Amino acid sequence: MPKNYLLIPGPTPVPQDVLLEMAREMINHRGAEFSNLLKSSTELLKKIFKTNNDVLILTASGTGGMEAAVVNFFSQGEEVLVGICGVFGERFAKICKAYGLNVKTIETEPGKGIEPETLEKVLKENPNIKGVFLTHNETSTGVTNNLRELAYIVKEKPERLLIVDAVSSLGAIDLPTDELKIDVVVTASQKALETPPGLAMISVSELAWNYNEKANLPRFYFDLKQAKKFLNEGATPFTPAVSILFALRKALENILNRGLENNFKRHMVLGKAVREAIKALGVTRLLADERWASDTVTPVVPPENVNPDELRKYIRNKFGVVLAGGQGGLKGKIFRIGHVGYVEPTDILVAISSIEIALENLGCKGLRGKGVQVAEEIFQEYYKD
Amino acid sequence: MPKNYLLIPGPTPVPQDVLLEMAREMINHRGAEFSNLLKSSTELLKKIFKTNNDVLILTASGTGGMEAAVVNFFSQGEEVLVGICGVFGERFAKICKAYGLNVKTIETEPGKGIEPETLEKVLKENPNIKGVFLTHNETSTGVTNNLRELAYIVKEKPERLLIVDAVSSLGAIDLPTDELKIDVVVTASQKALETPPGLAMISVSELAWNYNEKANLPRFYFDLKQAKKFLNEGATPFTPAVSILFALRKALENILNRGLENNFKRHMVLGKAVREAIKALGVTRLLADERWASDTVTPVVPPENVNPDELRKYIRNKFGVVLAGGQGGLKGKIFRIGHVGYVEPTDILVAISSIEIALENLGCKGLRGKGVQVAEEIFQEYYKD
Repeated sequence: MPKNYLLIPGPTPVPQDVLLEMAREMINHRGAEFSNLLKSSTELLKKIFKTNNDVLILTASGTGGMEAAVVNFFSQGEEVLVGICGVFGERFAKICKAYGLNVKTIETEPGKGIEPETLEKVLKENPNIKGVFLTHNETSTGVTNNLRELAYIVKEKPERLLIVDAVSSLGAIDLPTDELKIDVVVTASQKALETPPGLAMISVSELAWNYNEKANLPRFYFDLKQAKKFLNEGATPFTPAVSILFALRKALENILNRGLENNFKRHMVLGKAVREAIKALGVTRLLADERWASDTVTPVVPPENVNPDELRKYIRNKFGVVLAGGQGGLKGKIFRIGHVGYVEPTDILVAISSIEIALENLGCKGLRGKGVQVAEEIFQEYYKD
Repeated sequence: MPKNYLLIPGPTPVPQDVLLEMAREMINHRGAEFSNLLKSSTELLKKIFKTNNDVLILTASGTGGMEAAVVNFFSQGEEVLVGICGVFGERFAKICKAYGLNVKTIETEPGKGIEPETLEKVLKENPNIKGVFLTHNETSTGVTNNLRELAYIVKEKPERLLIVDAVSSLGAIDLPTDELKIDVVVTASQKALETPPGLAMISVSELAWNYNEKANLPRFYFDLKQAKKFLNEGATPFTPAVSILFALRKALENILNRGLENNFKRHMVLGKAVREAIKALGVTRLLADERWASDTVTPVVPPENVNPDELRKYIRNKFGVVLAGGQGGLKGKIFRIGHVGYVEPTDILVAISSIEIALENLGCKGLRGKGVQVAEEIFQEYYKD
């Protein structure tokens, strides 16, 4: 087995000091040690969410957090708007529909983000929209929506609820929750937060709590009011994934010690290096319009004669580099390079080299070193201080 | 800090080889290695559930599994019966109510299980009851319902759905799912299965799948049909808690290598030793009627002049023995000794000794060795072969 380079957009590689936290002895989830663990992790999370709102930790995948963001704030039949740039925007719409909301959508072509003008127009035409669901970083298409522009438009009506899926961005791409007046932000442990999967986190503004008072959608496991009540006593309503919380606290400390802004910068450099390398190869193409290109995941359209899944298999078997395939309608059409969380320039150099070798092997000649050369230049600049 | 003896009814102590699985490097949850992990764990679980039904693994606490057992099988307004012997029976009723079911209940006094005659009578008087929810082992009161009797009564009408919460029993107390025709059994990773918390497991019979086809309660994250569809492809609908699955497989292998029947026997001996020791002390009293006394957790009523929480604190600080307090209406009135999962006779000897010392210290004189003596005899008999 070759060394393992997990370059998918989650679960992402976990640093060894965080992994070792996972192996700690079990503790009483109703005792003082756990209470301290939960409270301190929550405070660290607030720094990464850049919020003074409540932040609640749920034992669930990110999708569980998304469901919590639906069922806690709305009532049967209420009108909401979902921005769809790919599979995860669609997921928000599906959850809203499953719970009986009246769902309007804005759908973009794969690789494009939401245009502020479109959002403005739809909101104007549908004055009864109570809440807007946006994906910060759409993992399936490698699109990062410009929340600075979009949040402003949603909040032109301050009583409209703004809910953001930041599962594959929070901690890697700047998301100033309070500054942008985002009411609810959802994320998960296994992406930029450098922790194994199993925890979702959600921030809740005062306005969102007001919505919660009136919301009649059924909920129990994901009841955030209960979660808040228990958090005030340093506990969770139900037995939490204690080990993942041990790991999360360690990972958050690492990120904050390194500096959140430095973390954003590293992701910007990783994203830029991947994109420039892919462009330099000439035969491969970026799926996402560069106006919205994500700094955590890059979907790549391979040359016409190359099957992306075959390329991925070759790279995985020979070099241990694990890339992601396409999702939804993009299955079999693209491959995706994840560069989120505990990923460094060296990982990207390995990934680009492997792709060059694979392409050469699959019949695209003369590419050796072409992408790497460009990535090297970007990384040299990054390390110059 | 003294050595740690975690004797609460979950999370339970995790063996070191299982803990080390938690520290494994992250893998792609859409790759072959994960697919093999999920499928093999599911097959091992079926042996512990004693079922040929589908078994699905969810990233959630046990309560998430309970919610799945409600929302997947019923429609708004349908009549169900919930047997309540404590906090966890109540929880099933709360979930059913939250989702708009018409809930009938049978409530027992704390420490008593459900009488077959009562169940029979209520089912006869309410012929529209579509499903019956029972707690196999009620953690809050230390009561194990006799499912052999109760399941038979529910299944006198074969089309009536029988749903069992086996969170604190499955793997420790025999529960032959298929033999008793139980349609849905819910359990979780952190009790008898010797794994950290974060996974719930649920078995689903063919009859339950038929109910699922018609069930209109809203669901998305806990949609079991989706979970089954993905399991057929060796995957989960959403990113699973990969690390806990690594641990779970190891723990299930351990349990099955040891022999499931041996596991049941050990728990019977642990339960008996704890109960006999508590009785031998004279000043302490068992909460649960011995007809229903649980082999995984023993709630103890302390002498009148002893505060159970003070006793627990003393034992925890001096000897590292962590016992549980009372839940719900029993808060501050009892303490509970957990003896489920990776717990051995030595742990019980330590626990009983610590309790003797604590009682002596809190003014109940002359108890030293009285309980331990009785436990020793039971363990000597157990080890005689």
